[in-house]
Amino acid sequence: MPFETITSFQNPKIKLAQKLRDKPTRDREKLFVVDDRRDLVRALACHFAVHFVLFDPDHADSDDKILIGGIDPHLIFHVSAEVLAKASYRENPGSIVAVLHQKPPHTTLQNISAPHLLGLVDLRKPGNIGALLRTADAADFGAILLIDTVLDIYNPNIIRSSTGACFLDNIYAVDSQQALTFLRERHYTIMAGHPDATTHLFETDLSNNIVLILGTEDTGLNATWQTNCDQLVKIPMMGHLADSLNVSVSGAVMMYEALRQRLHHGFFD
Amino acid sequence: MPFETITSFQNPKIKLAQKLRDKPTRDREKLFVVDDRRDLVRALACHFAVHFVLFDPDHADSDDKILIGGIDPHLIFHVSAEVLAKASYRENPGSIVAVLHQKPPHTTLQNISAPHLLGLVDLRKPGNIGALLRTADAADFGAILLIDTVLDIYNPNIIRSSTGACFLDNIYAVDSQQALTFLRERHYTIMAGHPDATTHLFETDLSNNIVLILGTEDTGLNATWQTNCDQLVKIPMMGHLADSLNVSVSGAVMMYEALRQRLHHGFFD
Repeated sequence: MPFETITSFQNPKIKLAQKLRDKPTRDREKLFVVDDRRDLVRALACHFAVHFVLFDPDHADSDDKILIGGIDPHLIFHVSAEVLAKASYRENPGSIVAVLHQKPPHTTLQNISAPHLLGLVDLRKPGNIGALLRTADAADFGAILLIDTVLDIYNPNIIRSSTGACFLDNIYAVDSQQALTFLRERHYTIMAGHPDATTHLFETDLSNNIVLILGTEDTGLNATWQTNCDQLVKIPMMGHLADSLNVSVSGAVMMYEALRQRLHHGFFD
Repeated sequence: MPFETITSFQNPKIKLAQKLRDKPTRDREKLFVVDDRRDLVRALACHFAVHFVLFDPDHADSDDKILIGGIDPHLIFHVSAEVLAKASYRENPGSIVAVLHQKPPHTTLQNISAPHLLGLVDLRKPGNIGALLRTADAADFGAILLIDTVLDIYNPNIIRSSTGACFLDNIYAVDSQQALTFLRERHYTIMAGHPDATTHLFETDLSNNIVLILGTEDTGLNATWQTNCDQLVKIPMMGHLADSLNVSVSGAVMMYEALRQRLHHGFFD
């Protein structure tokens, strides 16, 4: 079957891909863009449906062609490098720009049974959130609660910095009251890092049934969550200047300490 | 003494502050800009000399005024919020933009005696490098070797993401041969993270005399350093998708595991 070719920068599909950089358009259309091959492989593995794919066969390598070969040909449109560059968000576009259908986020928590959860309260920076999703997956934190967070996981910077972990089916958008009710019912220990805590991280049992709560970059954890924490822990600060860490770093240090304890106790054996 | 006031956007000091965003100007003038109060406090604590300070007294809070009160009045120039905004790199400028003198980096390693070192080989992204400098300070990695790296530590993004850790007197710019000779002489164990390593991080003794080497974001550790590593370690990856971590995250996980072991062995008691 011959593929349809798009040659005009003004084509509605090219225009749509460009407009999907903006959250209002993503919210309205329930679509988003993936323009990196690894990220697209991961989105498809996570069962996101293709709306259409722009493909530049002249700049495709064999891995690109294999990936394209697995997609319904009716959804694939051939384009030149110039047209692809218009639709791509990257400085050095590859050969593929895909527009995919969003999935509605989970808004109830009842299905969660993982022993380690990550709760992000009103975080703002896509780069931090993406890095935390990526680390949470690597450290086996089995569900992510986006608490009182307006941000959408289809932001291009979150997709890139999470290297596709934002596509996993373990992200829940809830408010503080929902989260607290669920966590109390299921007897999760609610933990957060805090510079004034008296217990330090490496003296804390993180091996089972915990939720690690991280607050916003500038002002830290809000009053609701400080009040409702079961345990505040301090990450040791041994330096000359540093009295805190970047939130994606402090989250990683705590998640990997939890993983170390679980490995030590043989939970994965 | 009345302070001199600058009212023109065209004033050479305002022009100079703007031009110092660019590396060629920083390299030529041996100056750099700090436009955040916390970062300036840390730069002054680290004995950086003031070239001049632009100060907007109408938008200064008491902490700003205390800081300004400690600086030679001849070096302070009053400006309006509009003029300050021209010189500042931030979206929401405060009341202070300082131009400081650079210090030449250390280029010999002989004075280093710290038991834990961090070596960055050809890293590129200022946000990653800054976060690593901040974490290295917090985790007591006592010296930073910038190996075969062209990057300057006075990049505004490095200053911001390191929250001033780039001002510490423990940063050394060297080439691979210098670094290897020194590390061998002093019997440091050269370690690096690698996805194919057979030893995993939490089974590795990191408690004494190690240098942790991190490679570039996209392609990882180069051949020279892979060949010369004494030990490659694997950070456990338990996830569905993630097969690697952001370099500032993997560096932090390894540095904090080293700190945990040192605390466990009582090295700080």
